Formats: sequence, C-alpha cells, structure tokens
Amino acid sequence: MTNFTSFSGLRGICLDLPSGHPAASAAVAQREATLTKPPRSLGRLEDLVAWLAHWQGHAPPRLDRVEILVFAGNHGVTKLGVSAYPAEVTAQMVANFAAGGAAINQLARAAGAALRVIPLALDQPTADFTAAPALTEQEFLAAAAAGYDAVAPDCDLVCLGEMGIGNTTAAAALAAALFGGGGARWAGRGTGVDEDGLARKRAVIDRALEHHAGVLHDPLAIAAAFGGRELAAILGATLAARRQRIPVLLDGFVCTAAVAPLAKLRADTLAHAMAAHVSAEAGHRMLLAELGLAPLIDLNMRLGEASGAAVALNILRAALACHTGMATFAEAGVSDKPADEAEPKAAG
Amino acid sequence: MTNFTSFSGLRGICLDLPSGHPAASAAVAQREATLTKPPRSLGRLEDLVAWLAHWQGHAPPRLDRVEILVFAGNHGVTKLGVSAYPAEVTAQMVANFAAGGAAINQLARAAGAALRVIPLALDQPTADFTAAPALTEQEFLAAAAAGYDAVAPDCDLVCLGEMGIGNTTAAAALAAALFGGGGARWAGRGTGVDEDGLARKRAVIDRALEHHAGVLHDPLAIAAAFGGRELAAILGATLAARRQRIPVLLDGFVCTAAVAPLAKLRADTLAHAMAAHVSAEAGHRMLLAELGLAPLIDLNMRLGEASGAAVALNILRAALACHTGMATFAEAGVSDKPADEAEPKAAG
Repeated sequence: MTNFTSFSGLRGICLDLPSGHPAASAAVAQREATLTKPPRSLGRLEDLVAWLAHWQGHAPPRLDRVEILVFAGNHGVTKLGVSAYPAEVTAQMVANFAAGGAAINQLARAAGAALRVIPLALDQPTADFTAAPALTEQEFLAAAAAGYDAVAPDCDLVCLGEMGIGNTTAAAALAAALFGGGGARWAGRGTGVDEDGLARKRAVIDRALEHHAGVLHDPLAIAAAFGGRELAAILGATLAARRQRIPVLLDGFVCTAAVAPLAKLRADTLAHAMAAHVSAEAGHRMLLAELGLAPLIDLNMRLGEASGAAVALNILRAALACHTGMATFAEAGVSDKPADEAEPKAAG
Repeated sequence: MTNFTSFSGLRGICLDLPSGHPAASAAVAQREATLTKPPRSLGRLEDLVAWLAHWQGHAPPRLDRVEILVFAGNHGVTKLGVSAYPAEVTAQMVANFAAGGAAINQLARAAGAALRVIPLALDQPTADFTAAPALTEQEFLAAAAAGYDAVAPDCDLVCLGEMGIGNTTAAAALAAALFGGGGARWAGRGTGVDEDGLARKRAVIDRALEHHAGVLHDPLAIAAAFGGRELAAILGATLAARRQRIPVLLDGFVCTAAVAPLAKLRADTLAHAMAAHVSAEAGHRMLLAELGLAPLIDLNMRLGEASGAAVALNILRAALACHTGMATFAEAGVSDKPADEAEPKAAG
C-alpha cells in the first residue's frame, strides 16, 4: 500500500519521473516505413503505435491487457444546487456499473478492456469548497494513494474515468485556479443544469476562488482545495502509470482537470497520457489547449465514466492491427519506388 | 445484372429515391431517453444509432452483416506524372488485398466487417482526361452498374472505398468541375507527390476543365469526363444502397468526390451516407463542407482503401452497444429526477 505523507513528498515524486524508450518508438517508425502504404498515410494511427511503444518499451507494442479504472466520489458542493441530479445518483450509478447496465460496461466490452470501478468513501462527501478545502491534505493524499495502487503493474494501457455528481463544478474550479479566468470561463452545464443552475455554478466557483486565494500558487494544494477523491485518485493513477511507464488514455473534462496539476508541477509529466476525446462540456477544449493535448475524437460526448476513453481505445486497436498485421513492400511484391524512377514521365 | 442505358436513365433513378423510416429513428430516440445517462450525453453516438435505424427500418438497428467494398481502377492521367507511384501499383495492391497484407485487411478484421475487393478492368486505364472524357457514357454506366450490383441486399451497412493510382487527380478534377475553383483549390499531394508533382497536377486539372467546359452543367457527364471506373462504381453502389435503404459509410476524398455528383442531382441523395472521416488530402475538408457532411473522425489519414470507414465503423459499433446493452433508469434503480425535485437546494 502506497502511503504519501505530504504534498511536498508527492511533489518530489512528480519531479523525479522516468522518460520513455526512444529505441522502441524508433523501431516502430522503422517498420512503418516498410509497410504497403504511402509514407505517413495512416496519420495519427502511426503516431499512436509509436507512442505506445515509447512508453511500453517494446516494439511492436501490445494491447493484451487494458484496464479501465473508474473512480467515484461525492462532493459537498452539490448542496449548493450545482448539478441536475441528486448526490445519491453517484452510488446508484456505482451499483449500475456493478450490474453491467451503464454505458461504460457496454463500451468496455466492445473495446476488449477490463473494467474496474473504485468507489471512494461515497458516504463522506468532500467539504463545501466555498467555505473550506474540499479535502484535507491527508484525505487528498489517501485518495491519490488509492488511485496509485489501482494501476496493475503488468497493464499495457490504462484508461481513466470518473463518476461523481457535482464533479464538473469541482473540475471547473480546479481549472480556474490553475489557469485563471473564473467561473464564467470554466463552468459548463455538466449533466445538464439550466440557466439558473449554470449561474449558480459560476458564482460558486468564484466564491471558492476567493476563499482559497492563499493556495493558488501550489498545484497540489489547489487539487485538494477544489477537487474530490475521484479526481485525486486519477492524479495518483496517472503518476503510478508514469512511474511504471504505462501509457494512459484520459477521458473527458473532469479527468483532464484532475491531472492538470501534474502538468503545472512539471511540463512533461503527462507525456505518457493521451487525451481520448474532447467532450461537449464547455471548458474541455480550452483545458486541452492549455495542456497541449490533442484529442483523438470529437463526438459531442459528455458522459464521463471513461466513456470517451473506451471509444478511443478502438482507434488504438485499429492502429496496432495495421502495424502488426500489414505486409511489407518486399513481402507483398508492391513497388515502393517513386513513379519517376519506375517509368518515364510525359511533360506535365 | 443491372444495365443502365444512358445518363438520363440513371438520372431518372437518382430523382426517384425512397426516404427513410422515421418511426424507427423515433423509437431509438424514445429508448435513448430511458437509458441510465443524462439526456444526449452520448452525443453523436446517439445520432448514429438513430441514423442507422432510420435507414434500416428497425429499432434497434443491427450491425450483424457489414460489408466493406473496395473498388479499384486505373487512370490514363498517370502518364502525365501526377502520382508518386507507378500505375502498376494498383494491381499490386489488389493482389495485396487478396493476400490479406494491406491496411484494410487488418482494419476490416478489427472492426468485424467482411471485405470485398472489386477490380474494374485494370488493364484498360481510363483515357487521359486532358484530351478526351476519361470514360465514355457506356463505360461509365457499366462501371456504375458493377458498383450497383456489388451491394448485397441483406447488408446492414456498406462501407465504400477505393484503390487507384492517379485517382486523387481524378477526384480533384471532378470536385473542381462540380464546385469551381480549379486545380489550385482542389489538388493535394495524394500518395505524396513533391512540389513539382503538385504543380503538374494543378496544371493537368486546369487543362482538363478547359477541355470539358461543354459538359460542366451535367453532374453525370462530369463524373464520366473526369472520374474513373472505381469512382463510377462507388456512385452506383451508393445509389443501390439508397434504393434498398442501406446506410453507407463513405471513406475519404476520392470516395466523397465519387458521390458528389449525386448530391448535385438532388440535394438529399446522400442522406443515407455518413462521412467516416476527413482525410489529410487537401480538398477533402472543403468537399465535405460543400456537401454538408460532418466527418466522424479526423486522424490525418490519407490512405484510401476504405481505411477511414473501417476505423469509424468501430464508433458505430460502440454506439450500438450502448443503445442495446444499457439499463434503463427503472431497471437500474437510478434516479432520473432533477435535483431540485429530489432534494432542497440552498441558495447559490
């Protein structure tokens, strides 16, 4: 069991992370150039295979064991009327995950991934962050450690997601604290609040930013002040994956906000993480831009639950299937010579 | 065996097409509203299921039998040095498809689709379209009929793609003839021509537009003047699918250009067709915009072979898995009541 003892201990881990395996990504690129297609014609599919190899350290990379981790938590801020659903829905949806009835159950099966749902003290919502830090330092570190330990060392890829009524408010506040702009810039409709709900959400974020003005210099203190247990766990899991050089697919707005403090601590901390999609939640596109992450798909989804990551996983599988299964020019007897070496050319 | 006898006979078919099944898409929307997720939170995934049902005429729709049809043809214009590869590569790649070594073989298997490759008179390239119509009326109609007959009546979905060295030049010329703007607007690098090759390609297109100025009022004559057999077959297959109300996934630039004459004949002719992706080929994004088609993915691919369609098929499968497999609010015991009915709200 991992035991983080302080923000500064965790910060130390973030500043001492391994890099990838350039030899593995170079081997992927070398094979790509021999396959029966024009150079680079599979576009990002080729980049994805190289990225997987770079972190896994073997070429070709593997997607035999893929885990989807969905962390769930509850948020004190729901008392302020920031969500379209009551807080009870978090636990109800965790039961739905266990029974196999949620979107992520279907998407995980369709993409050939194992699903693990990790509820985090659902009976202890975070504090109302307009009046106190959402989590104490110790609560935050315990949730981050739970996420850290959830990553299986022999995974080929980890997909991260969340469930938590109220957590788009937490994520928006976290993003505002890290990147500026306040509630007006970052609050969106989440599960579907109306105009009044959106106005409340913006006001709540602005009050919280004022209350926590003293910690806005410290990314981990920000994560504890505004985030929740599921966000802390996603941060911990992302760190665990990086330490073990396991590539990560990030889901939507909440998931991206959860890992943003890592990027603030050190710019390349998310090099092993890929944005699976850009969600319809208002702040996500901006947040990805702040972090320099280019999403794989853009389908107007805004469900959470790692649903965007699970859909994007199919694209990684398609990319890998091409890389491992295609014939080379030599094997297939296809000409890879430019036209002007192979036949005379009439004047254009 | 279908036998089209004239452009005007084919035009008549295009102007007398069945519409979809609104009752089936309405039934899909009705079920979506009961599933355990916020309304519309699966975004385009929900639209895709409704679209499939609308054309298939049953709810839920099915993706049990999906066929990928790849048509191949050769182009006389390759003599003018418009491609990075020699014309022989078309037949070599058809052999590679048969042997299972191409990208589309891997992608079709990964997406659970059957692949059929239909070479069209590869030993008879089209005429050099700077000096004559690429295909005579009868040649064009025969290729369109071959495409028409390739669509299996009991298919749940057809994915269309192509292989043909030189065919991005044909597609760009076709798009220019339909939508204006000349070679400078529509020519791209195709399989990877250099600056000189791109300049030649533009000049070839502009010469061809001048030569065929007399037919630019007639979409089918344009298709014959600039297109190739594989483009004509894609047009025929798209028409066959519409007549049988089978939904279609279109691949990239060449495939989209091939069906563009149908949209010019009647605006809604492509209502049963979805753009699988936007390719890296320069003109594709513009062409999709001209046709009002919104691509599902944007991954910088530019291979053809129906590769973009096969990748996007995974997204359709994910969408359908959610629709058919998810629990309803009632089944799962999840609250679908708005928060303000379920619990009192503090002032925001």
